[in-house]
Amino acid sequence: MTEPAYVAVDWGTSSFRLWLIDRTGKVLAERRSDEGMLAAAQTGFPAVLQAHLAAVEAPIHLPVLVCGMAGAKTGWVEAGYVDTPAPLSSILKQAARVPGEAREIRILPGIAQRDTKAPDVMRGEETQLLGALGLDAVGEALVCMPGTHSKWVRVKGGIVERFSTFMTGELFSVISRESILSLAVAGAEEAEDVASFKAAVKAAYAAPAFAANLLFGARSRQLLFGGTPAAARETLSGTLIGVELAAGLSGTVPQAGIELIASGRLAMLYRLAFEALSVAVTPNDAEEAVRRGLSIAAAAIWTK
Amino acid sequence: MTEPAYVAVDWGTSSFRLWLIDRTGKVLAERRSDEGMLAAAQTGFPAVLQAHLAAVEAPIHLPVLVCGMAGAKTGWVEAGYVDTPAPLSSILKQAARVPGEAREIRILPGIAQRDTKAPDVMRGEETQLLGALGLDAVGEALVCMPGTHSKWVRVKGGIVERFSTFMTGELFSVISRESILSLAVAGAEEAEDVASFKAAVKAAYAAPAFAANLLFGARSRQLLFGGTPAAARETLSGTLIGVELAAGLSGTVPQAGIELIASGRLAMLYRLAFEALSVAVTPNDAEEAVRRGLSIAAAAIWTK
Repeated sequence: MTEPAYVAVDWGTSSFRLWLIDRTGKVLAERRSDEGMLAAAQTGFPAVLQAHLAAVEAPIHLPVLVCGMAGAKTGWVEAGYVDTPAPLSSILKQAARVPGEAREIRILPGIAQRDTKAPDVMRGEETQLLGALGLDAVGEALVCMPGTHSKWVRVKGGIVERFSTFMTGELFSVISRESILSLAVAGAEEAEDVASFKAAVKAAYAAPAFAANLLFGARSRQLLFGGTPAAARETLSGTLIGVELAAGLSGTVPQAGIELIASGRLAMLYRLAFEALSVAVTPNDAEEAVRRGLSIAAAAIWTK
Repeated sequence: MTEPAYVAVDWGTSSFRLWLIDRTGKVLAERRSDEGMLAAAQTGFPAVLQAHLAAVEAPIHLPVLVCGMAGAKTGWVEAGYVDTPAPLSSILKQAARVPGEAREIRILPGIAQRDTKAPDVMRGEETQLLGALGLDAVGEALVCMPGTHSKWVRVKGGIVERFSTFMTGELFSVISRESILSLAVAGAEEAEDVASFKAAVKAAYAAPAFAANLLFGARSRQLLFGGTPAAARETLSGTLIGVELAAGLSGTVPQAGIELIASGRLAMLYRLAFEALSVAVTPNDAEEAVRRGLSIAAAAIWTK
């Protein structure tokens, strides 16, 4: 086994992932848990991190690089924001040092768009962008990062120029759990109905103003024509994603298409959605992107 | 005191209202409670109604006309639907008789739009339409009925031609209570910020696809510029209403403008929203409309 060079940590709102990495970027050990920011704020960030470092037998002076909500005001140590237009290289330069720790621990900042007409923030996604595009990114990219709070980001010559957050994933969650549609989708948690999904994406993309009507239609259709819970669930999901795509694709789309950074079921759904609209997509795995982003930053900070 | 001619009941999902009415349409007595369909399905519809009838000393053979969710499949007696295109006069002709009751009790049907592309249902609003427009309605009307599930209805020569339901009110409720925006709006329950509301209406009306982004902006703005909870709440409310208006106003708007049927705070918010978009509105009180609609139907059924 090669020597570990640093530890990379993706510390989100509700998840914790840690990798022990050598100087070539190879993963030597890995940890995952649900001790995200919310849980760690209760039990203590140093204790959570220390337990995982001990589990992978990280040497005592090995440096640790963290990204994500651990750097929020309500997190461990506030890591602030880099303002747009933000060179991806500026992120690692503004990493915040955690005080009072024997080993060097740094938390990467987020990115803020201080535009009173379109204020926006990201924290964690900047590291995925760095991983997917690299420090020496050239050309223009339109990046779609689906999630609880999806981000659409315009990057030009390695500089994050503008971005927009859409509450798509969170809307899906609260509407499917808490609204009248919870009755329509009951029992369909894992089901898939690709035809209903694509039809909903197209309908919402074509008439985004009708979103709240298309959503209610999932229930009316069941009442009048007896649709399945799976169809209702995919209509809900496709409607919300279709509206997001109508906004995200409303500006210039680069010839190469969209850089999609996503994992698992979300990656599958968004690929289907772009396919329904005949928009070209380059898929990037989100977890790989964040690990690469942390590696690029750690290498630049500690091993160059 | 004149003789009562009939009893009118608006029996919604979560509210119950009863009026004792004479043959001229005058209200002799009134009852209100939160024993809506959901509560009455537990305690029993006949018992709830009987208690209120006793409280207003309704004579034993006085007929009762009911509208609303009491006529749903999950209500008291299913009153079915009249299909679009639906003459307002057809509603009272298809009132369902409640069996096994000494007095005559009828429940008005809802209206169904059995269009596989735009399936929709209403139950209760048809009675408000009848009350606001009358049995002998002429000309064309575009009616906006805000609520948990807002309805936009096209009526031509007394016939309900098409309608669309928007989950606007319910979205406001679940987003303000259950999403990350609950933090942004905390403590602003009764506050009003007309400037933020109107700005949000205009922004969402102009770019409805950005709804989920404009919503998140309420939080980002607070993080970056320190806005008040009242401003965030009105941004949430204005965004959702602005998107609804973008859809509702997307077809031909009659020269007379919009017939708005609403009460209380919702009436005020929608009037402000239409004002922000310079669209003319004729206000109708929703409670008065439903009582008038029940009176028109009861008079046609029993006193002609």
